[in-house]
Amino acid sequence: MLRQAGKSPDDGLVQGAWRGESPDAAPARGVVAASAGNHGLAVAFHAERLGIPAVIVMPEWAPLIKVASARRHGAEIVLAGADFDEACEHAIRLGDERGLTFVHPFDDPRVIAGQGTLGLELLEQRPDVDAVIVPVGGGGLIAGIAVAIKARRPAVKIVGVQSEKLPAMVKSVAAGRRTRAAAAATIADGIAVREVGAHAFAIAREMVHEIVTVAEEELANAVLRLLEIEKTVVEGAGAAPLAALLHRPLGLRGATVVLVLSGGNIDVTMVSRIIERGLVQDDRLVRLGVILRDRPGALAGVAALVAEERANIVQIEHDRAFSHWVAIGETEVELTLETSGRPQIERLKSRLESAGYRVEERRP
Amino acid sequence: MLRQAGKSPDDGLVQGAWRGESPDAAPARGVVAASAGNHGLAVAFHAERLGIPAVIVMPEWAPLIKVASARRHGAEIVLAGADFDEACEHAIRLGDERGLTFVHPFDDPRVIAGQGTLGLELLEQRPDVDAVIVPVGGGGLIAGIAVAIKARRPAVKIVGVQSEKLPAMVKSVAAGRRTRAAAAATIADGIAVREVGAHAFAIAREMVHEIVTVAEEELANAVLRLLEIEKTVVEGAGAAPLAALLHRPLGLRGATVVLVLSGGNIDVTMVSRIIERGLVQDDRLVRLGVILRDRPGALAGVAALVAEERANIVQIEHDRAFSHWVAIGETEVELTLETSGRPQIERLKSRLESAGYRVEERRP
Repeated sequence: MLRQAGKSPDDGLVQGAWRGESPDAAPARGVVAASAGNHGLAVAFHAERLGIPAVIVMPEWAPLIKVASARRHGAEIVLAGADFDEACEHAIRLGDERGLTFVHPFDDPRVIAGQGTLGLELLEQRPDVDAVIVPVGGGGLIAGIAVAIKARRPAVKIVGVQSEKLPAMVKSVAAGRRTRAAAAATIADGIAVREVGAHAFAIAREMVHEIVTVAEEELANAVLRLLEIEKTVVEGAGAAPLAALLHRPLGLRGATVVLVLSGGNIDVTMVSRIIERGLVQDDRLVRLGVILRDRPGALAGVAALVAEERANIVQIEHDRAFSHWVAIGETEVELTLETSGRPQIERLKSRLESAGYRVEERRP
Repeated sequence: MLRQAGKSPDDGLVQGAWRGESPDAAPARGVVAASAGNHGLAVAFHAERLGIPAVIVMPEWAPLIKVASARRHGAEIVLAGADFDEACEHAIRLGDERGLTFVHPFDDPRVIAGQGTLGLELLEQRPDVDAVIVPVGGGGLIAGIAVAIKARRPAVKIVGVQSEKLPAMVKSVAAGRRTRAAAAATIADGIAVREVGAHAFAIAREMVHEIVTVAEEELANAVLRLLEIEKTVVEGAGAAPLAALLHRPLGLRGATVVLVLSGGNIDVTMVSRIIERGLVQDDRLVRLGVILRDRPGALAGVAALVAEERANIVQIEHDRAFSHWVAIGETEVELTLETSGRPQIERLKSRLESAGYRVEERRP
């Protein structure tokens, strides 16, 4: 994302707004950056390459993979703040105290210009593109892409996507001025930013066709689809464009659409949780409460029926004391099953019921 | 994998052994194939493209994703047999009964020639390759790659990898004749084959430099590394080359090595399980049994210590009746925690012990 940061930006792409700024001439004491996403990794990578000390401030809940990757590039990692905005304040203070140059992840024309190179590469690779869908956190990425693409192909639609938990750009565009979103958690940690950048806002207002929000379940579903169909690991923020394409009426049927999958730094524990939630949504993982008479052999009967229907038992829990619908002399087992879909679940439930068991499907 | 099946094989590559065979002239009644791996998908795909009916026989435990993908291409799917070898016998019988042309997944010179095109592409893309590591089930893929590469660049080392659960090629090469492996389950379902092909064996004996086996944990670990570092979903069989490179002394230090990642059709439920096993191996998921005095506030004390050490509680189980090391008046909780690694686990254990709790780490 920082491919052009520090270089003189290409005048052909750069708006008057940031002409006056010159690249920093003396970064020798080091740089400091705050990051919710992959900016921290980019700064760590390039600082190592250039032999400059780097301090990266990440929110306390930052994915371990982002922390570990930045550390691998020799950066000093500071975990501070409950969210990106707090981490950013901390980074600015730290920069002042230690005399480090602060590299903003999105509200810096040079960073935006660097991110714009993605738009140029995209046009080279797909000159026939009709629309580009881009994740939006602080807005730097979409601003850079919009400036680059609109300069060359004004007809291309630029669409932004935010998590509905943190719709800072949507609120700002609606209000006509930058508006902070309330603090919230989202699986799209890379775009979990409460206030968009001033430069990004000015560009987005003018050049972005539409900004939509997507729900957490839609983000999780998009991560799962990318794993299953594209065989690609994409983080929540990076999957936002696919979530929007699948779940929002964007009027792009038949169009050549480019989705910017902006990162793959997702903790595998999160991948594992997303898979499980996705399987439940898809009826491929189901939890059934089954009431048995509390005597030897009752469970064996249930297990046999499950086996005949070729569902796979993942977990069994047995709860006599706390089940709310069990009479004395009955017992409840809770079966977690891998299934092939809704038809198999319904067949299994009706077979269990025909065999005299009471069955209740549990919803998460 | 079937890119050249049905075409006349390139004479420059083909050994005398299969000169006599001619492409089948009349597949109009349809084809039948047995597959543990991606052969079934390839046959279904090309049958659909050519407008030929296809029946694919897969073992009963075949990954759902392979079943569903083959079905999506319009093939009739038959689940039969406890393993590939049984499915294959079933497919041959079915072909006889219905007059369908049987397309063998590996023991057919035309299929081997088609798989050899992978070797040609590989040489085009990396003319500097020193060694190629290839998963081995029935042996067709490595035979095709070996014939193609050795014809052009005899110095390139061809290395094969099998699951240690099903080392049919290793045993056959050692015995000097084809030798069946015992039936076994492996996460590398795509190479779960008990007997290698006659053609493949003849070629492998002559052209393959070395064949190694890898353990199930090593396969799981390789799948996890590919997810985390390469952001790529690879099935167990496809991850075997990386497992061999990481865990076996292949004498390839400094060499340019190509790993053939031969498939990504792994059920996401399996991905989720592999992630969890991998996390336990890496000390990033740990289960601790902790003995508390059975009184209010005891659990809160444990939870506070865990929180101070910044470990994340994933699951808590409480077991008074069945714990083997608990006295009357004590209670045991079992905590499953996400951790950053061994140092954090040891710190947490020693803090809990200093605070007067007994702690036992559970191994899977």
